[in-house]
Parts: sequence; C-alpha cells; structure tokens
Amino acid sequence: MPTKKVLVATEKPFAADAVSKIEAEFKTAGYEVEKFEGYKAAEELKTKVAETGAEALIVRSDKMTPEVMDAAGAPLKLIVRAGAGVDTIDLKAATDRNIVVMNTPGQNSNAVAELAFGMMLTNVRNHYDGSSGYELRGKTLALYGFGQVARNMHRLAKGFEMPTIAYDPFLKPEDIEATGAKCAKTVAELFSDAQFVSLHIPATAETTKSINYELLASMPKSGVLINTARAEVIDEAGLLKAFGERGDLVYLSDVAPTEVKDLEAQVDALEVSKKAKRAFITPKKMGAQTAEANNNAGVAAAKQIVDFFEKGEKRFQVNKPGQTF
Amino acid sequence: MPTKKVLVATEKPFAADAVSKIEAEFKTAGYEVEKFEGYKAAEELKTKVAETGAEALIVRSDKMTPEVMDAAGAPLKLIVRAGAGVDTIDLKAATDRNIVVMNTPGQNSNAVAELAFGMMLTNVRNHYDGSSGYELRGKTLALYGFGQVARNMHRLAKGFEMPTIAYDPFLKPEDIEATGAKCAKTVAELFSDAQFVSLHIPATAETTKSINYELLASMPKSGVLINTARAEVIDEAGLLKAFGERGDLVYLSDVAPTEVKDLEAQVDALEVSKKAKRAFITPKKMGAQTAEANNNAGVAAAKQIVDFFEKGEKRFQVNKPGQTF
Repeated sequence: MPTKKVLVATEKPFAADAVSKIEAEFKTAGYEVEKFEGYKAAEELKTKVAETGAEALIVRSDKMTPEVMDAAGAPLKLIVRAGAGVDTIDLKAATDRNIVVMNTPGQNSNAVAELAFGMMLTNVRNHYDGSSGYELRGKTLALYGFGQVARNMHRLAKGFEMPTIAYDPFLKPEDIEATGAKCAKTVAELFSDAQFVSLHIPATAETTKSINYELLASMPKSGVLINTARAEVIDEAGLLKAFGERGDLVYLSDVAPTEVKDLEAQVDALEVSKKAKRAFITPKKMGAQTAEANNNAGVAAAKQIVDFFEKGEKRFQVNKPGQTF
Repeated sequence: MPTKKVLVATEKPFAADAVSKIEAEFKTAGYEVEKFEGYKAAEELKTKVAETGAEALIVRSDKMTPEVMDAAGAPLKLIVRAGAGVDTIDLKAATDRNIVVMNTPGQNSNAVAELAFGMMLTNVRNHYDGSSGYELRGKTLALYGFGQVARNMHRLAKGFEMPTIAYDPFLKPEDIEATGAKCAKTVAELFSDAQFVSLHIPATAETTKSINYELLASMPKSGVLINTARAEVIDEAGLLKAFGERGDLVYLSDVAPTEVKDLEAQVDALEVSKKAKRAFITPKKMGAQTAEANNNAGVAAAKQIVDFFEKGEKRFQVNKPGQTF
C-alpha cells in the first residue's frame, strides 16, 4: 500500500498536545510520521533526514540549508514551515531541487491581535501605575491593511465598542464594509480620523518609511500608533520629530526599530511630555508567540502536507520556479 | 420663577468636558449651577456652602462633615456623590438633618471591566517580556456576581470568543442566560469549570473570606483569579496555601490585600513556580479611575438631582431614615 513518510524536525519542539494533533492528522491520512525533536547540531539533522527518506518535512525555525536538502535527497518533495517566517529556509536551493516550500500564514492572527489590545489597555491605563487613565470604548480604531490580523482586531474592537475604519488597497470597499468596518478612501483619512491606528501592512518598496511625520502629526489628540507588522514601514526620524512636537502621541510596537537606536528611550527623553512610556516596544517580536498559534501552525502544516500529496494543493507555496530570491 | 441652586464642590475638579456636560444638564432643567473647584481647606468649603444656599451639592471624595452640613443649613436637601464610595460622607449626620445622600453606581462598570481584561492580557503574555504566552480565545471566563461590571466583562469576553459562565444568587437563571452566558448552579462550579474566575460580589458577612483554599485548589490548570471587587472576600491565608501547592495559579487584583502583608511578594517568593508575578496587584484601586467614568458619574449626578426635585426620584439614595450607620 503506497503511503507517505513525514519527518517533524524541530530543534525547538512543539508542545505535546500540538504533536498529538499533528500525529492524528497523519494517522487519518494513513501517513507515517516520525519526530526528530530537540536536536543540537545541523550535522545530526543531516544524518537524520538521510536515514529517514521522508517525502515531507515539518519544520519551525530550523535551518534548511542546501546540505540538508541534499542529504534528504530525491524523496523530499515538500518542506512546510509551521509558522510565517521562511528566512531560515534557502528558498533558491529548494527551488533548484524541485522542493516545494510552504508556510502556514494566518494561524497566529488572533495571537497578534490579542497582543495589540493588551498593549493598548496597558497604555490607556498608564501601565497599571494606580493613576487615572481612560477607556477604549467609543474610541475609533483604524486598521491599515485588512488581512487576518486586522480582522481579528476588528472582532475584538466590536467587543470593546470601538468603531473601526479600515483601508486596504487590495480589497473591494464592499468586502471591508461587509464586516461592519467603515472603509477609508485614503491612508491619510485613517490617521486624521482615528485616535488608534494599527498597522497591518507588509514591508514593500511602497510601504517602507511610509508612516511618516505628516501622517503622525495629523493624528487627533492622544493619538496612538500600534505596530505589530514591520519596523521598516515607519519613518523613525519622522516619528521622533512628530513625538518631539506633540507630547500626547504614543507608539506601541512589537517590532524593534530598524534605524534609530533605542527609539523607546529617545522618545521618553523628549521633553514635551511627562507621560511615561510614550513608546512601548516589546523586547522581542512576540505577537505570534503563543502556545495556540504554535499548535495551530503545526496542525495546519500537517493538513497542507496531506492536501499537497492527495490533491496537489499548493496554495501556501512561497517558492515558485523562476522566482528570484 | 421658582428654580433650584446646585453647587458643584470638588476639591479635585472634574475634567472640563465633564463640567460642560453637567452645566448643560442643569441649563436644560432651568437650574442655577455654581462651581467651587480645587479648594484647599474644609474651612473654605464651609464658607462657600453657607454663602451659596444651594439646595443640592455634587461632590466627589470631598468630606461632608456635620459642620459642612450645618453651614449649608436648611436649603440643603440633597448631596450626590459622583462616584460609588460614600465613606467621605457622614451618612448619619445627613439623615439626622433630613438630607438625602445618593451615589451614582454603575457609571464605572466599563472602566473596571476593561482594566480586568488588561490585567488578563498582561498575565497571559507574561508581562510583555518577549516570551511565548497563551491566548484568551476559547478559555472559559466565570463571573461570580452578574451585575454591571460582570455584564461588561461578558460583552468583552464575547469579542475575545471566551465562553462565559455566571453565578448570581440574586438573579433568575433565565435572566443570566438571556445574555448568552451559561448559568452555574453553584459557586464551586465556577471554580472547577473555568480557567478564569472574576469576582463581582460585595463584601458581606456571607462573602467575607468565602474565596478559600478549597475553591482555589479546585481550579483547572493555569487557573486565574481576578479580583476587581473587594479584598475582604478572599481568604488570603487560603490563597497562599493553594498557591504554595500549585505553581500554575495566578491572582490578578485591583484591591489591596487586607490581612496578609505584601501578598504579591509572598506569592512570588513561594518556591513552587518560576513564573514571574503570579500575583499582580495594582498599587492603588484604579478600576473605576478613568476620565470617562468620572465624566459619566458627574452627568449622572446632575440627572439624579433634577429627577429628585422634579419627580421625587430617590432610587440611588444610600441613607434611609432609621438606618444605622
């Protein structure tokens, strides 16, 4: 009976219940699955993939080098990154070897949205220092980009009774408005009309440094910028300028600054405000870091492997032949 | 033309927009309103109330002593505390002088509920230290007491996709279930069935120290107790015992411990867990402390004054003739 063999190669293992869910997916499909968890060196991984002869790998932030791919040899058709980031996978080497690489986007969307609201509440209640703050209820939340994370933000905003306004150049206005969010016509409108603006855009040539002085300076009183997306989209010098002029602005970020060293300390040192922590930047990108997001990603990876072999489904492929990396 | 005169006597003034809303309420009713804000000494207040001859006072945490009441004299019929706590008002002295005292309950319910969710998110994301946490989505929230704050918690929980279960001995099960919350038959059920239990009960002879070792020990894995209500309802020694046995339990509190000195530090010192801040206690009761709650309370106070004089409405009276204080 023809079957498939899958290796779960995770230097940093999944939680136990994620593993049982992954195994259950493969059991249903009649696939063999082997685990290689908590290995210490690349050499061990090479030996293991050579021995196993797996047709698919599930990995996390494991390094997928040309050497590992060569050790796996001809049987290997598919590598699925359980998670979003594929910077640990040599995509060109995979393409050259006809190996399909996929990630599992969207599995961490709720995790990121909950983190954003956690930071927002921490801010409006003055980091729980005992002083009087303000409420989220009734304040407008603007969402720049209306993908999975933004849609989760929108759901949470409904609970908080915050009206939402969204802008996404890749969506039809009616698709945004069907969710109950108002649709903005321009990015400028988001910043001028909402006290809270949350970024959900990728870093592209167009978006890089696009969140600039003019947008921030146009925000209403006590404007709060939330960035769980990418640091590159911020014009950090422009942010410092706007924050230097206005002591009421706040920046909540889950992405480390790219150019301005210690942006958080620099904002706090500006002499226009006595408010503590006007810039609050998590020590390490942690939006997607929850047990649930990791579990979901593992299960999604298993499903994508089965769908690839059974139905030829390549929806989440990140390397395409002819693509340059 | 007969009218009424109201004095807003606030040592700690309302925000400017609260004042304009209060003034607008009285303008509509045709009442005169005078402000006495930011005074420094009780003596000043005495002089002012004697001069003004107001029939009603709006106060915040201002001290309403027998001397102030006597200075106000016969015209004074009503004192409204914009807020909940009336411990700064001598209720017996007011009753003896036929002065009705009211507070404005419920105006801060959303403020308290948002604080509770802020503390919950801070906890599940490890105080934003960069490490992997977990999500609120899908976890059950139990509400012990189903008044205004709990109903706001329930609304937020819906947004977070947290099922809620509530217990309130003073409500009919169908009234609880009409909101979409499940109705528990016993308090024990709340603790044994929900990972998050939030307290919304007053401190009475029956509830004092009722949250005890047995209830806490019965909580599921990673149980979180949230207390934005009253410290007195916790059996603090029992809590320490349960937390000493189980390193997974967490206590989030906006009320200072009553008996165990430095409960937060004592829990952190227990050697059963490496988790930081298993007890997180705000430095000062701040649940109700938001600009919106204060504004709402001021406006509610103005409305209650008009309803009292125009319709004899005494719904929020806290001192009744014959009551002992």
